[in-house]
Amino acid sequence: MTHPVIELTQELIRRPSITPLDEGCQPLMAERLAKLGFTIETMVFEDTTNMWARRGTDGPVFCFAGHTDVVPVGKESAWEHPPFSAELIDGYINGRGAADMKGSLAAMITATESFIGNNPEHKGSIAFLITSDEEGPFINGTTRVIDTLEARNEKITWALVGEPSSTAQLGDVVKNGRRGSLTGNLTVHGIQGHVAYPHLAENPVHTSAHALAELSHQEWDNGNDFFPPTSFQIANINGGTGASNVIPGYLDVMFNFRYSTEVTAEQLIEKTVAIFEKHQLNYDLNWVFNGLPFLTDKGKLVEATQTAIKQVTGRDTQLLTTGGTSDGRFIAPTGAEVIELGPVNATIHKVNECVKADDLIQLSDCYEAILENLLC
Amino acid sequence: MTHPVIELTQELIRRPSITPLDEGCQPLMAERLAKLGFTIETMVFEDTTNMWARRGTDGPVFCFAGHTDVVPVGKESAWEHPPFSAELIDGYINGRGAADMKGSLAAMITATESFIGNNPEHKGSIAFLITSDEEGPFINGTTRVIDTLEARNEKITWALVGEPSSTAQLGDVVKNGRRGSLTGNLTVHGIQGHVAYPHLAENPVHTSAHALAELSHQEWDNGNDFFPPTSFQIANINGGTGASNVIPGYLDVMFNFRYSTEVTAEQLIEKTVAIFEKHQLNYDLNWVFNGLPFLTDKGKLVEATQTAIKQVTGRDTQLLTTGGTSDGRFIAPTGAEVIELGPVNATIHKVNECVKADDLIQLSDCYEAILENLLC
Ligand SMILES: [Zn+2]
Ligand SMILES: [Zn+2]
Repeated sequence: MTHPVIELTQELIRRPSITPLDEGCQPLMAERLAKLGFTIETMVFEDTTNMWARRGTDGPVFCFAGHTDVVPVGKESAWEHPPFSAELIDGYINGRGAADMKGSLAAMITATESFIGNNPEHKGSIAFLITSDEEGPFINGTTRVIDTLEARNEKITWALVGEPSSTAQLGDVVKNGRRGSLTGNLTVHGIQGHVAYPHLAENPVHTSAHALAELSHQEWDNGNDFFPPTSFQIANINGGTGASNVIPGYLDVMFNFRYSTEVTAEQLIEKTVAIFEKHQLNYDLNWVFNGLPFLTDKGKLVEATQTAIKQVTGRDTQLLTTGGTSDGRFIAPTGAEVIELGPVNATIHKVNECVKADDLIQLSDCYEAILENLLC
Repeated sequence: MTHPVIELTQELIRRPSITPLDEGCQPLMAERLAKLGFTIETMVFEDTTNMWARRGTDGPVFCFAGHTDVVPVGKESAWEHPPFSAELIDGYINGRGAADMKGSLAAMITATESFIGNNPEHKGSIAFLITSDEEGPFINGTTRVIDTLEARNEKITWALVGEPSSTAQLGDVVKNGRRGSLTGNLTVHGIQGHVAYPHLAENPVHTSAHALAELSHQEWDNGNDFFPPTSFQIANINGGTGASNVIPGYLDVMFNFRYSTEVTAEQLIEKTVAIFEKHQLNYDLNWVFNGLPFLTDKGKLVEATQTAIKQVTGRDTQLLTTGGTSDGRFIAPTGAEVIELGPVNATIHKVNECVKADDLIQLSDCYEAILENLLC
C-alpha cells in the first residue's frame, strides 16, 4: 500500500496552481483538516487566496506554513514528463511543485492526521498558514494573514515553513533564519552631450564611478555565527544611447543588499547615502524593502526539529541561513520561533522538478515527531 | 543677374544624394571642370562614386575636397520648404545639403571658373577630390581615393575642405585640424549567479569599478595651443538581466577618446590596457580607429586663407580644431597642409537646413582669392 503522502502530493501537483492561482489546493487541504477538527478561515486579499486553519484554542501554537502556488513551467516540451501529471517513476514523483512545496504540504497534512490519531488531546494548538502567492509579489499572502492575526492578537509560538531546505539528503539542512533583502534603485543625473564637446556635458558614468567602486568594495559587517557578512551587489547598470559619440544624460543602477542581523536596513541606507553625498552626486534613490533578516538560533523549536530528524533519519542536521528569502521573514517579526524544513531542493524552479517518494514519507514522519516533541 | 554660385547650389540640392548616392552631382561638376581643361577620373569603390579631377601636371597641387552626399531629411513634413526644392527665399537657399556642403561645392566650381578665366596660365595644379560617402561609413570614399593617389605617388600640397566651418559669420572660423577619435568596445567577464550566493559568482560591475573610475579621472595630456586636453568618455555601459536578484555575468562598456596631437592612439591603448591589467580584469577589448588627429598650425595654406578672408570679408578669422571629424583626417597623413572653410554651420544635419546666398558669393570670392594667393 502506498503511503498517503504520495497520493496527496500527486493530487496537489495535478492542480496547476501557478502564482497567484490556488486551483483548489487549499480546499483539498481544508477538507482533510476540517475532518480533524480544525477551524478553517479563508482569507482572500485581491487576487490571492490564503487559508488559516487552527485546531485548539490554547497556546503554545505550532504552525505549519507554506504555499500552494508554483512557478511557471517554462517550455513544457522540455519536460520529460508532463509537469502537472505527477507521475511516480522509479521512486520519484515528477512535476512542477513536487519539491517546492506540494510534497511538504502533503507531509504536513499526513503528519497531522497521524499525530492527532495518536494524540487527540494534544497540548496547545496546531495551525496551518497557507498562501498562494509566495512565488509572486508576496504582497497579498502571508504578510496580510499575519497582519490579520496580529490585529486580533493571535500569536504563533513556533512556525515550521515547508520550504525545501535539504541539499543532499532529507533533513541534512534546516534553515533557522534568512538574511534581509533590500534593493536600491538609483538614477544618477548628468548632462547629455556630444563626446566632441565634453565641457558642455556631465557624464554620470564618470561622476558616479568612484562611488560605485567604493560601494562595491565596502565592508558592511563581519556576519556572525549564523550569517555570512552582508553582501552588496549591483544587479543592473545601464547608461548611454547606443551611439559611440553621445555622452549619456543619466545612469540607472539597481543594487541589492543581502544583510545579516548585525546591521539594520536603516544603517545600510545611511551608509549608502553618505557615500553618494561624499561624491556629490546628483541622484534619485528609491528603496524597496524585500524583507527583514530573521534568526531562530536556539529554543524549543530548533531542539524539537533536530531531535526529530535524528530520530527519523539518523542524521545530524545543519542549521543554515543561506539562500534566498522565504515567507518566514513575515512570521518571525511577530516574535515566533521560525525554522524551515523540507525536501531536497536540487530541482526546484527547474525543468523536471521532482521529489523522492521515500523522502516525503520521512518528511511526514519528521513533521509528526516534531509535533510529538512539542505538543505531547 | 544672379551669381552663378546660387544657381549651381540649387541644381546640386535638387539631386537627392543621400549617402552613398551621388545622383548626378559629380557629373554636373565634372562637366564644368572638363570645360576648364580638367582631366576627370571617376573612381567607384563598392557603392561609392568618387571623382578626382586635375588641371595641370606640375606641383604645387591645390585641391578642393568635399562630398556630394547629404544626411537623410527625417520627417519631410517637418520642413518648411521641401528639402530638395532648393527654394531661394528672403536671401536664403533652403534644402538638405545647402550648408553641408553643396553650397561649398558650387563655390569651388565658380571660384575655379573665375580664377582660370583670369589666370589661364596659373602655377602648379588645381584638383578636386569629391566623394559621396562622407556622411556614411567613410570606407569607400576619400580614404580610398587617397590610397590610389599615394600608390601612384601623386601628392596634394594644399587641401581645402569645404566643411561648414563658420559659426556666426562667413569666415569667422577656419578649422586647421581635428582631434583624433578612437573607440573601445570592452566586455568584462564575470560569473553569473544569484545575489544570495555571491561567493559562487563574480560581479563584473564590481571587478571593473575601480578601473572605470581610474579611466574616467585619468589625465591623458594637457593639450596644446590648438587642441584641448585629450578626453575620455564612457558612452555606453550595460550589465544585468533586469532582475534584482541576479549578479550579471558580463558588463559591456563602449568608450571613446577624442585625442590631441600630444598623444598617439598607440599610447592611449597602452595606457588603457595597463589599467585593465593592473586591476586583473578578465576582459575582451576591441578598438575602432575613427581617425587620426591632424593639425596644420602654420604654412602657406593657412596664410593664404587668412589673407583671403580678410580681403573678401574684412574679418580676422579664428583657427580652431573643435568639433567632430572630417575627411581632412584622410588627406593630412599624406603630408598635405589641410584646412576647412565653408559657410555657417548652424542648420547642418537639421530640419530646415539653409545657407545665406550672399555668403556663398563671398565664399566663392574667398576660394578664388586663396587660389590667387597660392597659384599666381
Ligand atoms: Zn517555495
Ligand atoms: Zn559635411
